[in-house]
Amino acid sequence: MGELTAKQTSGQQARIGWIGTGVMGVSMCGHLMDAGCAATVFNRTRAKAQPLLDKGAAWAESPRAVAQASDVVFTIVGYPEDVRRVYLAEDGVLAGLRPGAIAVDMTTTSPSLAVEIDLAARKIGAHTLDAPVSGGDVGARNAALSIMVGGEAEAFQAVRPLLERMGRIIVHQGAAGAGQHTKMCNQIVIAGSMIGVCESLLYATRAGLDPEVMLQSIAKGAAGCWSLENLAPRILRGDFAPGFMIEHFIKDMGIALDEAGRMGLVLPGLELVRGLYAESARAGHGRQGTQALFLALQNLAAAPGN
Amino acid sequence: MGELTAKQTSGQQARIGWIGTGVMGVSMCGHLMDAGCAATVFNRTRAKAQPLLDKGAAWAESPRAVAQASDVVFTIVGYPEDVRRVYLAEDGVLAGLRPGAIAVDMTTTSPSLAVEIDLAARKIGAHTLDAPVSGGDVGARNAALSIMVGGEAEAFQAVRPLLERMGRIIVHQGAAGAGQHTKMCNQIVIAGSMIGVCESLLYATRAGLDPEVMLQSIAKGAAGCWSLENLAPRILRGDFAPGFMIEHFIKDMGIALDEAGRMGLVLPGLELVRGLYAESARAGHGRQGTQALFLALQNLAAAPGN
Repeated sequence: MGELTAKQTSGQQARIGWIGTGVMGVSMCGHLMDAGCAATVFNRTRAKAQPLLDKGAAWAESPRAVAQASDVVFTIVGYPEDVRRVYLAEDGVLAGLRPGAIAVDMTTTSPSLAVEIDLAARKIGAHTLDAPVSGGDVGARNAALSIMVGGEAEAFQAVRPLLERMGRIIVHQGAAGAGQHTKMCNQIVIAGSMIGVCESLLYATRAGLDPEVMLQSIAKGAAGCWSLENLAPRILRGDFAPGFMIEHFIKDMGIALDEAGRMGLVLPGLELVRGLYAESARAGHGRQGTQALFLALQNLAAAPGN
Repeated sequence: MGELTAKQTSGQQARIGWIGTGVMGVSMCGHLMDAGCAATVFNRTRAKAQPLLDKGAAWAESPRAVAQASDVVFTIVGYPEDVRRVYLAEDGVLAGLRPGAIAVDMTTTSPSLAVEIDLAARKIGAHTLDAPVSGGDVGARNAALSIMVGGEAEAFQAVRPLLERMGRIIVHQGAAGAGQHTKMCNQIVIAGSMIGVCESLLYATRAGLDPEVMLQSIAKGAAGCWSLENLAPRILRGDFAPGFMIEHFIKDMGIALDEAGRMGLVLPGLELVRGLYAESARAGHGRQGTQALFLALQNLAAAPGN
């Protein structure tokens, strides 16, 4: 494999590429540019890259062209099929990545796909890391993300200075795919918390409690969790705007269940929650925040037969 | 109804009764005795009351006899049927409670039963409160419980100085039964967290992650919760000793589901988790801690067909 370059490992003046300039990507790439990196960017919808172009980023016409111009390429796109196309298509990242270059996929995607891309990169002497994040758009804006990294330790060490510009908790989790597996662990816990929190609030309102007062009693003890602290208040004021969108959560849970199936695991809680969110999406709530599970449960209760 | 007495409302030198001297009860009653209360105690198994008798508590031969000797009676026993017997049997609390006296049930029990007992107490001019707790034996020992109170506001204000000797978060949740409903809300959130945490750890181990390292990435973000912080480490070192016992959790979830059914609510997450714990109890894990759900899920994965 190609040698890692001094520019990669010092981080500061690396030539970076950025593919995927949604809300998260614009903030994250912006932090790297603020740190002195020269950036070449690509996005399916060019208009979304404008804030970075205004900041001095160069535009490239394809993921391949981004890779040709960069020492380290970052990607954060939507679905596994988008990641596959961005990396493996004819004009994809791997078609342009030079030996010794590093590509870091920060999309939440399939661990198996991360392994597949890693193998393909090795064949051309390049390096890849899977490095999904948690912390959402607020975490991206404040450079406060948790970044979960899978792949070779050397490549991780090389890009670590760059990751530190974007996140606060940066942990190497193991070989290729381990970053994605860790993100799945994160989503599995959240799925459980969400159903617990939503069922609890539904019970409280139906039982005639004042849910705000109920929360005073339970929020600091064994029921305490991020979802209760951050999403319960939104549910109670009828705010179902995304934070994290239901259709993206369905994607993540689907990936986790696919991987679980491959490993011979049964995850009945995750299956149940995925099913409820899928119903919710079918009912038109797919672009609401995950806290809208509350509405899906409310509908269950109102369904004929209850 | 009988007037509340000055002794009740000042708290300090009230004559208290205590029924149910398990691990929690001994600590809680002990705090009241330390505060200067004279105590009369009863327990099905007398030996368990010995620490309180050694401290100067008087023994009574029945719940009725306790009530006859007390201004405020506290009860914390096992199951709803125990509460029913302690309050409503011929030699029960209500047979001895004088007009104006207050009985406070700190057992986690059925909200409907709390309402039933409250109605029966009103007929004799006495007051009852339902005041279940969270925080476990450690919370009881450190007087750090959360106490969730249902019943008349005046009776709550009267015993508040006594409750403050036992807990840190003391909230009046509403009319009779509201304390129990609030505790159900607490247990419903915990049920969701537990399945999320256990499925996540199972996924992590099966995916070949180092679960301790995985936790570093996820514990401080949106997956963060009490169960992850406190129970995940126990699971990872194979420690399934109770904290909170599975068979008691099954009781609580059963109560919540019964009440939900009465209210026309469907709680699929809680139903699923209760079912998994019930299997776990049938497999002989009923007296292990709730974190042993991990073992039940592990067994699912190992079952033929997977």
